[in-house]
Amino acid sequence: MIKVGIVGGTGYTGVELLRLLAQHPKAQVEVITSRSEAGVAVADMYPNLRGHYDLCFTVPDSDALAKCDVVFFATPHGVAHSLAGDILQRGGRVIDLSADFRIRDADLWAEWYNQPHGAPELLGEAVYGLPEVNREQIRTARLIAVPGCYPTAVQLATIPLLEAGLIDVQDVIADCKSGVSGAGRGAKVGSLLCETSESMMAYGVAGHRHLPEIQQGLQDAAGAPVGLTFVPHLTPMIRGIHATVYSQLNGQQEADLQALFEQRYADEPFVDVMPAGSHPTTRSVRGVNVCRISLHRPQNGSRVVVLSVIDNLVKGASGQAIQNMNLMFDLEESTGLNQVGLMP
Amino acid sequence: MIKVGIVGGTGYTGVELLRLLAQHPKAQVEVITSRSEAGVAVADMYPNLRGHYDLCFTVPDSDALAKCDVVFFATPHGVAHSLAGDILQRGGRVIDLSADFRIRDADLWAEWYNQPHGAPELLGEAVYGLPEVNREQIRTARLIAVPGCYPTAVQLATIPLLEAGLIDVQDVIADCKSGVSGAGRGAKVGSLLCETSESMMAYGVAGHRHLPEIQQGLQDAAGAPVGLTFVPHLTPMIRGIHATVYSQLNGQQEADLQALFEQRYADEPFVDVMPAGSHPTTRSVRGVNVCRISLHRPQNGSRVVVLSVIDNLVKGASGQAIQNMNLMFDLEESTGLNQVGLMP
Amino acid sequence: MIKVGIVGGTGYTGVELLRLLAQHPKAQVEVITSRSEAGVAVADMYPNLRGHYDLCFTVPDSDALAKCDVVFFATPHGVAHSLAGDILQRGGRVIDLSADFRIRDADLWAEWYNQPHGAPELLGEAVYGLPEVNREQIRTARLIAVPGCYPTAVQLATIPLLEAGLIDVQDVIADCKSGVSGAGRGAKVGSLLCETSESMMAYGVAGHRHLPEIQQGLQDAAGAPVGLTFVPHLTPMIRGIHATVYSQLNGQQEADLQALFEQRYADEPFVDVMPAGSHPTTRSVRGVNVCRISLHRPQNGSRVVVLSVIDNLVKGASGQAIQNMNLMFDLEESTGLNQVGLMP
Amino acid sequence: MIKVGIVGGTGYTGVELLRLLAQHPKAQVEVITSRSEAGVAVADMYPNLRGHYDLCFTVPDSDALAKCDVVFFATPHGVAHSLAGDILQRGGRVIDLSADFRIRDADLWAEWYNQPHGAPELLGEAVYGLPEVNREQIRTARLIAVPGCYPTAVQLATIPLLEAGLIDVQDVIADCKSGVSGAGRGAKVGSLLCETSESMMAYGVAGHRHLPEIQQGLQDAAGAPVGLTFVPHLTPMIRGIHATVYSQLNGQQEADLQALFEQRYADEPFVDVMPAGSHPTTRSVRGVNVCRISLHRPQNGSRVVVLSVIDNLVKGASGQAIQNMNLMFDLEESTGLNQVGLMP
Repeated sequence: MIKVGIVGGTGYTGVELLRLLAQHPKAQVEVITSRSEAGVAVADMYPNLRGHYDLCFTVPDSDALAKCDVVFFATPHGVAHSLAGDILQRGGRVIDLSADFRIRDADLWAEWYNQPHGAPELLGEAVYGLPEVNREQIRTARLIAVPGCYPTAVQLATIPLLEAGLIDVQDVIADCKSGVSGAGRGAKVGSLLCETSESMMAYGVAGHRHLPEIQQGLQDAAGAPVGLTFVPHLTPMIRGIHATVYSQLNGQQEADLQALFEQRYADEPFVDVMPAGSHPTTRSVRGVNVCRISLHRPQNGSRVVVLSVIDNLVKGASGQAIQNMNLMFDLEESTGLNQVGLMP
Repeated sequence: MIKVGIVGGTGYTGVELLRLLAQHPKAQVEVITSRSEAGVAVADMYPNLRGHYDLCFTVPDSDALAKCDVVFFATPHGVAHSLAGDILQRGGRVIDLSADFRIRDADLWAEWYNQPHGAPELLGEAVYGLPEVNREQIRTARLIAVPGCYPTAVQLATIPLLEAGLIDVQDVIADCKSGVSGAGRGAKVGSLLCETSESMMAYGVAGHRHLPEIQQGLQDAAGAPVGLTFVPHLTPMIRGIHATVYSQLNGQQEADLQALFEQRYADEPFVDVMPAGSHPTTRSVRGVNVCRISLHRPQNGSRVVVLSVIDNLVKGASGQAIQNMNLMFDLEESTGLNQVGLMP
Repeated sequence: MIKVGIVGGTGYTGVELLRLLAQHPKAQVEVITSRSEAGVAVADMYPNLRGHYDLCFTVPDSDALAKCDVVFFATPHGVAHSLAGDILQRGGRVIDLSADFRIRDADLWAEWYNQPHGAPELLGEAVYGLPEVNREQIRTARLIAVPGCYPTAVQLATIPLLEAGLIDVQDVIADCKSGVSGAGRGAKVGSLLCETSESMMAYGVAGHRHLPEIQQGLQDAAGAPVGLTFVPHLTPMIRGIHATVYSQLNGQQEADLQALFEQRYADEPFVDVMPAGSHPTTRSVRGVNVCRISLHRPQNGSRVVVLSVIDNLVKGASGQAIQNMNLMFDLEESTGLNQVGLMP
Repeated sequence: MIKVGIVGGTGYTGVELLRLLAQHPKAQVEVITSRSEAGVAVADMYPNLRGHYDLCFTVPDSDALAKCDVVFFATPHGVAHSLAGDILQRGGRVIDLSADFRIRDADLWAEWYNQPHGAPELLGEAVYGLPEVNREQIRTARLIAVPGCYPTAVQLATIPLLEAGLIDVQDVIADCKSGVSGAGRGAKVGSLLCETSESMMAYGVAGHRHLPEIQQGLQDAAGAPVGLTFVPHLTPMIRGIHATVYSQLNGQQEADLQALFEQRYADEPFVDVMPAGSHPTTRSVRGVNVCRISLHRPQNGSRVVVLSVIDNLVKGASGQAIQNMNLMFDLEESTGLNQVGLMP
């Protein structure tokens, strides 16, 4: 059994890790920390876990965490910067769900997160945990940066086109719609049911922190800088991201995009390319570690529209984190992640 | 492997059977019938099943069903009346999720369902599939009537009090709130998002078909007829039933109700009596086969208030049906039913 | 024009006052206070008010408020206690939407609100602003205590039965369901969309602060203490209260309850007794100052079930407050309150 | 008083006309037709109208309709084709909320609506009822084609840029999100709460009927054909459209877009250009006849992002229809349309 530690387990990615790990046959949560909830049973805070966990939250303790085979960070940005190094030094492995190690350029990180990067010395070995791109590096990594939710949905929708050199790299638009759980479990007026239900809005149009992360991933795929317009929207639902990605064919009008995507993802356990003409729904991936994608060329023009859906808390966070863990520990990649989406 | 047939798999209890059976280690769906969708792949109709099923819907065929070890009926009432007998005769076993065999009195059934009972000769051997009451009969049954959703939530909340003789049997009120999936997948104006969202209403106050079913179960527990007022309400959510059951202590003011419920359900894998003073949420059981219960005596008076929550499609239908199957086939009762509720 | 002041206008009852008063032909908001938002334009905080108000929030200032003909308090409890007296002394009139003056017994108030009553000397002249009961006293009142949301729905559903002496006063149950806006605009985890959507729960079963308020009103109608069980539930919608009130006929089985209610409310502009057998929906009163009621006697038994719906922010708060204002200033009672509910 | 007739009043645009006209001081609904509901009181079908209408639905009758000053068609496409001509001939005026007269080219209409155009002879005099573009023609029109919901939101967001010649006309993308009421009140599985709630999906990417309508309007503004990619999405809410329109500045990087929009709409009663950097919410226009717009240029690049929100049933249908009526009958344009959006 893989001994698992979780730092900061009171938020939505934390409880989602607990939900998924409860059903994982090869992993066992040994430690879960929360300064504010120390002493509270996780099942008292999250009654859905009653009968599945006896564990209590504890104050973060490096010794206890160092005894774990792997430590997940489900914390706000900045926390993993200060704690990850110590765990690595003691021989542990770290899977960080926060943004701390996603951007390779420490200065760029500092610019978008308004604080100095706290562990630039670790950036060299951090692996961006998108298995569909970095599977082999993940297997041997000691430090994983789990991609953000929007970046996962957008990159999986776009990289096959960029890798194949089919689209204009200067002109990519990602219009994204997210459920409210993406804003976390913090007590903010803007996340109240009465403020978000029965309404739709864009936010962060001037610049969202996932923009540089997406750009880095797209640039890797394209081998050149990518001009990206990224507009996230808040949608009145709990879970789910729907990315609608617009790009322009750069001349190769005859390309078979459907075949391209099907081949690119043929061996991927968690990317499902739907039949041509499909419209994926976020509910079809609710609670599961799947990205569903479909391709369109409206009126057979040169505009490509890729639709991509994930559950932001699973393939967009905790499920992908466990997928990384499975790779790191030589397990079947889908171990513990074969649930069926909850419909209706 | 238990070979499973499903008659009428296009509704919500059908797709929920498919979701749960996909994760069941000892059962395999061999046949699923739908006259209207014959030839359609179940994964085309329900994209959450993509990757889990290759099966297509087929026209109902007694021979194919008879080869199954067990046949689930997820059909409107009346259908199982005409088909169950044939399956039983050929040596099959039947688990009926409809109302066809829930009420033991054929005349009473006919009165509430406005049509003659189609198979009164089978009533003698039909077992009411509430494992918390009829576990031993279920093990050897050939024909199971899976309880209705409201009846499950209300009976589990009330029978400990009735069995112990603690409450006035003439004065039980069940105020129940259900998500819209209880109304099924039929194309009805009354189930549209625009008609049900952002609104709350009672319905069927004059008389709902679950009333005689609940009364029968409560009477069995009490050993006497029970005076029941049952008011269901439509709630703007997909899944979940919240039953609030009001009864009156009949004098034994000192009874320890918390201990009574804890003892009554001590060995039950799917009934969770919460600590005194708790308020269970329907989301804590979303997608799982659990009934959570808590007990209150406001202002320490003689009124008892029992709160009981289930997922109407799981413990209130398809999950309970599989729980019955597990018992009938000598499996661990919770096989394939240990998921964790989806929260948030 | 009536000059209106509003103290504490940043919450949901505050913005609802602004919405309704913008459409009121005889009233004009002159002052709106908020310590935390002083200097902010109300239309910047609430964009639905753009084009309707030029007003900014200001720091509370007794002089400015004293120049108003009437001051609404849309504040947490305790605030009106300290400010109302001063306004009355300077000749102003006060309509308090908080709980400060609803309960006539200062000790009882202190017990339920966990603090001493801050203005017991004003209790004698405070009028409970339920026009259907206290219309004449309201006309001449200087200080109005606007009823709570649950109390409005429950009292209108119950007092005709109590006034007529038809039911057992020892046995009234009010099972109430409220939208989340009843919890206010405070940044609380429990009010997040991700915590309340797609779920249903009871709360405060041990004792909710509206219990003594309802009991006081029912006792006034009955002329005797009333035994009440009150269980509120949180429902996944923004607005609306659905009260389901259960009582027991005390012998007069032949009473025509439908006629009783129709006569009791024949001249009421804002109480709509629906035809027998109806099931009112909360959405039918969304945004409007109406209480819709229907009556049931399931199976013609002695149990009476009254269904009562209001919009908690309108007839349950700000609309009722304006109805009181209209009476106090000799306007047609429905002035500015004749909107049509938003459906769908 | 303007005597109003409504053909086909049982759908959502019909009941919304009734809601708004109940509050209109200069118009009175005299006739409302529905073949299926003839004889039913409108207030029985729509309880929110109780106390506001005594009217019953009647079978369509040309004589009765011809006595009205104006007849609204709130019907599926094709119906106005056959009836409008007769009403015009008898001297009536017609405001058609359906798609029958929106597209000037009868062949193009036939192609998108899969049936021959039923009244090409009327196209010459039909006026496209977008007051912000065609105000003067509307004043004297006998036949108005009320714009579709998506077309209203997208055109108001885009035409100032096109009129000013600031953007590349070959490269406009409209990513639109609509509430479910846009799908109407028909009993379709795809509109059930259980199918649409807690989910997001694109639809009609291959080609939606509003595409040619939008293209016609944009072409009029640009004076040249416009290359448009239009992707509608279904959003889990009742009302509201959020259009996110992407276009490319064609070189004039210094243009002050904020000033451009503010000037273009300076005298418009129902277009609200928000301050730079704003993010309009659909709830801010819930129930009201307003389009709120804000402008962005992310990272000060050449991509322009315009956010535009309306209530699809008001400014996107029935409210805009009444705005047209006001113009046709020389009333103040905003008569009866000055409600405040319902928030929360």
